[in-house]
Amino acid sequence: MQLNNGLIFMSDTRTNAGVDNISQFCKLFTFEKKNERFITLLAAGNLATTQSVISLLEERNKAPTDRGPSIMEAPSMFQVARLVGDTLREVIQRNSDVGQKADATFHATFIVGGQIDGSEPRLFLIYPEGNFIEASTDTPYFQIGETKYGRPIMLRAYDAEMSWEAAIKLLLISFDSTVKANLSVGLPLDMLAYQKDSFECMYRDRITSEDPYFLSVSNGWGEALKSAFDQLPDFKF
Amino acid sequence: MQLNNGLIFMSDTRTNAGVDNISQFCKLFTFEKKNERFITLLAAGNLATTQSVISLLEERNKAPTDRGPSIMEAPSMFQVARLVGDTLREVIQRNSDVGQKADATFHATFIVGGQIDGSEPRLFLIYPEGNFIEASTDTPYFQIGETKYGRPIMLRAYDAEMSWEAAIKLLLISFDSTVKANLSVGLPLDMLAYQKDSFECMYRDRITSEDPYFLSVSNGWGEALKSAFDQLPDFKF
Repeated sequence: MQLNNGLIFMSDTRTNAGVDNISQFCKLFTFEKKNERFITLLAAGNLATTQSVISLLEERNKAPTDRGPSIMEAPSMFQVARLVGDTLREVIQRNSDVGQKADATFHATFIVGGQIDGSEPRLFLIYPEGNFIEASTDTPYFQIGETKYGRPIMLRAYDAEMSWEAAIKLLLISFDSTVKANLSVGLPLDMLAYQKDSFECMYRDRITSEDPYFLSVSNGWGEALKSAFDQLPDFKF
Repeated sequence: MQLNNGLIFMSDTRTNAGVDNISQFCKLFTFEKKNERFITLLAAGNLATTQSVISLLEERNKAPTDRGPSIMEAPSMFQVARLVGDTLREVIQRNSDVGQKADATFHATFIVGGQIDGSEPRLFLIYPEGNFIEASTDTPYFQIGETKYGRPIMLRAYDAEMSWEAAIKLLLISFDSTVKANLSVGLPLDMLAYQKDSFECMYRDRITSEDPYFLSVSNGWGEALKSAFDQLPDFKF
């Protein structure tokens, strides 16, 4: 989510290959160089694909002889998005071309956001085909994965001026609506806030299902909805 | 939706074959015999399939020589659900078997609810494969089509004891959340309320986008959400 103050990211940690095969994995990754760049990736979709993409992006950083384009050297966030997109497309193609057919597709989607010194923070949504779109004031946030349940509150409560504290509340409510409705999304939630022009992580936290603030938002939101519902006038025949 | 008082149904009227091919069709159908049965069908999915199913169900009523199993003669709602399921499966198979491949699938889903003299009102969800599930006190309502955006409020505000007036408000809020997020769902909305043991329509209405009550719920809900959101405590670092 793009805010006037910077960028904020949240992801769940559940992956599944069927309801009887559920695991916990972090889907939030960062790449940073002090005083120069801070980049965050969020992943959704096939876990083998997204892990492979992250490994490739990291490996390229670690092997100086075979660097080529690197996420740590790309001159702009646009180039970073292109690099992530190209890597994603390559990984999907490599798995799809070998003639094996998986029940699930190898598809994955990424959100890439961050800032490189000399330009504003930018936020991109990367498609499995490797192409991407950028957030704007008209559409200042992206969702990937199981997006629909949590969307109505985003549409209604988002405000670019909102504080970090309110933004975290909004993201938690949006995730809570999704978690309540869909088994493929589950706590704990990873969150990261990036303050514009800082080129470092401002705040990173993992919110568990026992987190007192999460519980107060989750229960409070249910009650708030019920009471908002009761206060609206009933239909009249 | 199943209530202690009876059954209530709501559907939108939009169908689309791509964003540049949008039409308006009624997706709510009734079959009634005074003092004996009242049956309502809601359709979602491929319009050619659902229209064909409804025509077949109606034609069977109209051609006395070729009646066979008829929705107007089935001895129980279970038999009605089976008849709708069988008809749906046949229509999908007929279109799929001729070797043509459509871009979109021929799939469709139905909700069937109603009451036949001698038993309680019952509510079924019919799958494209022709099989079906029945609502219960644990899951007292079904959604078909674009279900996700409108689900969180259903999960939180539904109550079997609620009045007709509150139930209509709930359905309107659920549809409004969907309409705001997804172009494939659009007003006007058709709604029907069936009072238990009446074997006739209690109330049927079409709610347009200019309907003053709908507008008051739509705007009021947006504001109520915003204020509920503001009232919850912000996150603290």
